[in-house]
Amino acid sequence: MEKRTEIGEVGEFGLINHIASKFTQKQDWTDLGIGDDTAVLDPKGNKVVTTTELFIEGVHFDLGYTPLQHLGFKVVSVVLSDIAAMNAIPAQITIGLGLSNRFSVESVDALYEGIQLACEEYKVDLVGGDTTSSPQGLIISMTATGVVEADKLVQRGTAKPNDVLCVTGDLGAALMGLHSLEREKQVFLANPDMKPELEGKSYVVLRQLKPMARFDMIHEFRDVGVVPTSMIDCSDGLASEIIHLCNASGLGARIFEKNIPIDDETYLAATEFNVSPLTAALNGGEDYELVFTVSQEDFPKVEKIADVTAIGYMTNIGNERVMVMKSDAIVDLTAPGFGKQ
Amino acid sequence: MEKRTEIGEVGEFGLINHIASKFTQKQDWTDLGIGDDTAVLDPKGNKVVTTTELFIEGVHFDLGYTPLQHLGFKVVSVVLSDIAAMNAIPAQITIGLGLSNRFSVESVDALYEGIQLACEEYKVDLVGGDTTSSPQGLIISMTATGVVEADKLVQRGTAKPNDVLCVTGDLGAALMGLHSLEREKQVFLANPDMKPELEGKSYVVLRQLKPMARFDMIHEFRDVGVVPTSMIDCSDGLASEIIHLCNASGLGARIFEKNIPIDDETYLAATEFNVSPLTAALNGGEDYELVFTVSQEDFPKVEKIADVTAIGYMTNIGNERVMVMKSDAIVDLTAPGFGKQ
Repeated sequence: MEKRTEIGEVGEFGLINHIASKFTQKQDWTDLGIGDDTAVLDPKGNKVVTTTELFIEGVHFDLGYTPLQHLGFKVVSVVLSDIAAMNAIPAQITIGLGLSNRFSVESVDALYEGIQLACEEYKVDLVGGDTTSSPQGLIISMTATGVVEADKLVQRGTAKPNDVLCVTGDLGAALMGLHSLEREKQVFLANPDMKPELEGKSYVVLRQLKPMARFDMIHEFRDVGVVPTSMIDCSDGLASEIIHLCNASGLGARIFEKNIPIDDETYLAATEFNVSPLTAALNGGEDYELVFTVSQEDFPKVEKIADVTAIGYMTNIGNERVMVMKSDAIVDLTAPGFGKQ
Repeated sequence: MEKRTEIGEVGEFGLINHIASKFTQKQDWTDLGIGDDTAVLDPKGNKVVTTTELFIEGVHFDLGYTPLQHLGFKVVSVVLSDIAAMNAIPAQITIGLGLSNRFSVESVDALYEGIQLACEEYKVDLVGGDTTSSPQGLIISMTATGVVEADKLVQRGTAKPNDVLCVTGDLGAALMGLHSLEREKQVFLANPDMKPELEGKSYVVLRQLKPMARFDMIHEFRDVGVVPTSMIDCSDGLASEIIHLCNASGLGARIFEKNIPIDDETYLAATEFNVSPLTAALNGGEDYELVFTVSQEDFPKVEKIADVTAIGYMTNIGNERVMVMKSDAIVDLTAPGFGKQ
């Protein structure tokens, strides 16, 4: 039987000390990490970007199929993805943790294992937090700060007409991963002796359980000497993000169905689940790719970056958010939460 | 009947726009507030301090006697108090909000009214957040950033032996406020027609419902040209905070019962509730006063500040955390969560 240590046995201060002992501060930006009233960051003349997200069990994640290590990694990726979307470099994260009495010291350790792996992957420091009890389930609030040179900061609303609209990676996979995991959960609930059937789903499942914030792209942009003219991360699906870019810039956008990058495994899974692969890409969400624009001048430099796809361009027709289908038909882009734009 | 608008009617983006429209960015530090992937802060060459707290209904607050406006104000005070404890100036806050379907747009408005009032009081900008549904109750995560000149930053562990140990304001009132409110709640539950009996409790109730982060003191320190040698805010009770200062500095501390500032109303309420006023001050918590040390040289300048009381001094006996009683007896300071030190 696995060891189970009640959090009450070590106490709040004991738990914090236990966690803090596993994290070493590595970043040049961090003057002070865990252990004082606040963390201290030295941005060395740069701007500081901040973002926060709240993750609630039963709303944002299902521990029925999400290992705590993966969850720890994922919450860091999700919040850092917003830092990437500003073309910034991540520096520090702080965490707020609400734990019901279902959670032991060992389960908190598992969560922090994933957080620690993410800290190493993204080269950020965990610099503080707040641990408390929760009447029900697991609550995680995650805040991140990053730094960016003033002339490299990229906002949502600063594209120009005819700028090339690009995305990184491929889209729709995370939703197909979610469908795969949900189906396996149902199968398991119906018959706990059944083996999970995730063959041919390894890519989409990984995209759901362990998404990556695309700082590799942020470094590529610096390497090729390009600053995107606008950028957003793809958390709610491509259509929603394009509408955000259009709303913020007062411009329109025109994208081409044939250019939207969708992985083969996503196609196959979508077919299996009777979902249109295109809908998965446009409205699936949780892919955490970057959606950005570059000037036509800069496009040749960006085009050389592996994993960047040009999908369309910005137009000066303020209310245009359309997709040209393979059939040449033109359809409006729509996203839940916005209604029809 | 009061108007009730379901959050589903306006949607997440609608709610965010509704809230954002009420907040204007006022701080010189804020380059970018709500509306992009992150907020942007220009620290203008200063260090940046960050802190986060998680507040969960039923654990940290009881909406049975806490008006949402007061709660909004309080959560900002609580998180900013940590910024004050670093001798820093507050700059920005971000909020994560988890709302069960019990909460309407109007109740979210009431919460934000209090947050807005706090933003004006403390001259900070609300620059971002995340709003989501919660399966049960209200969840608030609050993160704050502040700025501080490198030579004014004050940590916990930097006191020297013989430094004078001081506190601002008075202690124990917030706990007595909590007892008063809890009693009224029980009376109300037993008989909803009973009028609340909070006469003679206005100060302690206000200290519980609407605590203030002591930035007035931070400005006084700058005015008199003093940088405390160490500092912490008083969230868990004086004894706990002194133990933190001692642990962090490797020093001991000796305080005097006769010097501990306790308001008359706190005394009276404590007597009524059969609580020792001294215990309320030492272990009550939630007063959000500052506990700090200054060098003997600087003490005359600090002594002149109204609302500062010298309560003892730091010693070079590493394991000494004691209080000299009015009877001249010497007792060890203890705090829950630490065990006996």
